[in-house]
Amino acid sequence: MKNILLDLIKEKKFNKLKEELIKLNPVTISEIISGVPTREETIIYRLLPKELAVRSFSYLESEEQLRLITSFSTGETTELIDELFFDDLIDLIEEMPANIVTKILQASTFENRKKINHFLSYPEESAGSLMTTEYLSLKEDMSIGEALKYIRRTGKNSESIYTAYITDKSKKLLGVLSLRSIILSELDQQISDIYKSDDIVTVNTLDDQEIIADKFKKYDLISIPVVDLEGRLTGIITIDDIVEVIEEENTEDMQKMAAINPLTDKYMDVNSLDMAKKRIPWLLILMISASFTSGVIGKYEHTLALLPILNGFIPLLMDTAGNSGAQTSTLVIRELSLGNIGVGDWFKIMIKEFKVSFLVAIILSIVNFLRLYYLEMTLFGRVNKFEIAFVVSFTLFFTVVLAKLVGALLPLGAQKLKLDPALMAGPLITTIVDVLALIVYFYLITTFMPV
Amino acid sequence: MKNILLDLIKEKKFNKLKEELIKLNPVTISEIISGVPTREETIIYRLLPKELAVRSFSYLESEEQLRLITSFSTGETTELIDELFFDDLIDLIEEMPANIVTKILQASTFENRKKINHFLSYPEESAGSLMTTEYLSLKEDMSIGEALKYIRRTGKNSESIYTAYITDKSKKLLGVLSLRSIILSELDQQISDIYKSDDIVTVNTLDDQEIIADKFKKYDLISIPVVDLEGRLTGIITIDDIVEVIEEENTEDMQKMAAINPLTDKYMDVNSLDMAKKRIPWLLILMISASFTSGVIGKYEHTLALLPILNGFIPLLMDTAGNSGAQTSTLVIRELSLGNIGVGDWFKIMIKEFKVSFLVAIILSIVNFLRLYYLEMTLFGRVNKFEIAFVVSFTLFFTVVLAKLVGALLPLGAQKLKLDPALMAGPLITTIVDVLALIVYFYLITTFMPV
Repeated sequence: MKNILLDLIKEKKFNKLKEELIKLNPVTISEIISGVPTREETIIYRLLPKELAVRSFSYLESEEQLRLITSFSTGETTELIDELFFDDLIDLIEEMPANIVTKILQASTFENRKKINHFLSYPEESAGSLMTTEYLSLKEDMSIGEALKYIRRTGKNSESIYTAYITDKSKKLLGVLSLRSIILSELDQQISDIYKSDDIVTVNTLDDQEIIADKFKKYDLISIPVVDLEGRLTGIITIDDIVEVIEEENTEDMQKMAAINPLTDKYMDVNSLDMAKKRIPWLLILMISASFTSGVIGKYEHTLALLPILNGFIPLLMDTAGNSGAQTSTLVIRELSLGNIGVGDWFKIMIKEFKVSFLVAIILSIVNFLRLYYLEMTLFGRVNKFEIAFVVSFTLFFTVVLAKLVGALLPLGAQKLKLDPALMAGPLITTIVDVLALIVYFYLITTFMPV
Repeated sequence: MKNILLDLIKEKKFNKLKEELIKLNPVTISEIISGVPTREETIIYRLLPKELAVRSFSYLESEEQLRLITSFSTGETTELIDELFFDDLIDLIEEMPANIVTKILQASTFENRKKINHFLSYPEESAGSLMTTEYLSLKEDMSIGEALKYIRRTGKNSESIYTAYITDKSKKLLGVLSLRSIILSELDQQISDIYKSDDIVTVNTLDDQEIIADKFKKYDLISIPVVDLEGRLTGIITIDDIVEVIEEENTEDMQKMAAINPLTDKYMDVNSLDMAKKRIPWLLILMISASFTSGVIGKYEHTLALLPILNGFIPLLMDTAGNSGAQTSTLVIRELSLGNIGVGDWFKIMIKEFKVSFLVAIILSIVNFLRLYYLEMTLFGRVNKFEIAFVVSFTLFFTVVLAKLVGALLPLGAQKLKLDPALMAGPLITTIVDVLALIVYFYLITTFMPV
């Protein structure tokens, strides 16, 4: 496709080019634009009908947007600002360097500049920073016929016309009405007769994006009204922005579970110094807490010196304990964040983990025993005494059970203490079960082995 | 709210109860229903207007649905089946025990039974199993006015009326048209003049849900048409189902990264035996591969026996290497799955990880050196020779750098080999960098220390 279009440019067949372009959807156009040289990019962009041009623009990566907007005349900038949906405009301003922001603000009306400044003051990740002000609002005393006429006249400027919001004179939100209900009602019915006024799902301007995403999921919404503390409608948030938020929140959780303080940008956009800053804190904490393991081993130095073969099993025990614990804590952290379980379920979870860990531990320790006692002897001619194979496998059994119980309790405990389970339980689980594994190991050695 | 309603039942004020109920939205009602005893549940459900009753039903957990449906008369079952959206009906049938499925199928028309059987034959997680057949379809030769009339007449039975699909006589998909465009067009325009026919975004009945979710995200869709291999429209998928898919896919990735074979149900719904089966395979593989670490340590047994203090630092080195590697691999796996980076970016990623790891490694090893050489001496009176502190910290430096490079290469390699990075790279990263850490440690010991 791209090559066909580039050929048309080369042959200066601009009419044919325009014809081909308007068949495409804005996402495809944005992909094409970002793959061609600047000159061709500008030609393509200028041939697009205004609305398609602006919509394609909103799908570009910010560096592409920068490249294009730098080449814009004042008139073109004004046009872009007029046509962009307000939330896309705010996103754009947040991404652009200062000189371009100045250019954008100069091309905006006074009214718009005021609104932009107000929007930029909402905290990041709040409903205020996600919402758009271009929603469809209806009055109570309209008939369905009048409402439809009104929608036909003004709908072009609303980001979503599929939900209408009914407000009074002071902009207080009275109710919501889906376009579906409007379309399916008789023309002479009154809005006030059919709109839903009780039990409206709303969010507050300062609500965190995680809360908003949860409401979208729970109520299967395609948009949600945002109200201020006085119940006045200040904007709406649409589902396409929430899909991004859901991915962002999931990314954040995964990063926290891997002991990284969440990045605010994409991997490639974070410079190395900032990246290092996000990673060092937990690595330091975990490194220093690993001294406990050194401490435990140090205490049993003389035992190990007498039977150095016992050394070799420490990594195996620590790794298996860490993996078992991580399995459980990941499951519990995820279920907590999806709201499928709560702290109140702790007893049921412990029972389940106890049963599962028992099964898992039995199998692992039997396999391990057979491997140590029979296989290593046969294959490598290395003789592991029965006591050694027994103590190692017995330790394995206990540590797997312990690791799974700790793996379940740690995130539940974090949640109970109002700490973030992903951040608290994710990174710490391995260190904690490592120490437990060593304590069990040395306890069993001193109990069962004749040192 | 629940208590008010229960009081109304106790006082037998059913009219007032009904009045209160119809103000609520279906999600709230489903929450109330699932929190009350069976008798009250049935009373509330029966007081609801048909549509609200069915919509509330579709939000219930499957055990609640089972409880209710068991108490239904044949007439009520038929009503439920008639009113449920087809995809919810399929979900219901998939969840219910055999005797209830029989009851549902008996209450269905012959036509519906055929359709149900056809739907049940689509593979799980395919577009076919996610789609609904209740979409809005228009003909090319309608005018906007006729289309609107048609929508008003038939819209009640469509799950989504916000996108209309234009098909020919053989059901081949010709184009799509948003309700927005219909509403904003003149009544005497022809559908054929305004619908979009090129560059339609579709999915195939057999496409995996991950592909579908990606298209929703990329194109900001609220519904997508599903076509068969001949391009005939077979159904549509709506955004609310895709939001669930996105969460499912993320959950699956997290489980894979924690060395669990993905669960197909919620944690609480999986029995202990199945749960153990999902966890044992990777634990076994990882336990057995941990023999490499035992092997490395075994080879240096005599060195460790001469200087047993060196033992104590092994967990610290392994843990820090594991954590560093996991940080990088988690970031890379996640960015790969979001499509933000590709295998082709490997060189840029390696450069970035090299810089980051250098910064991180320097800081960690300096802190570690100071702690070992000065602090432990002062605080615990324990003397660590300069050589020991030096070798441990030097090892730390190299292993952190190595761990980060391996953490980046492993998922990229898995992707390149068309293996799932989350499954392959997630669980293995710790084991691999553990072995590397030990090799570096013993190499540096034998090089720098007079043993």
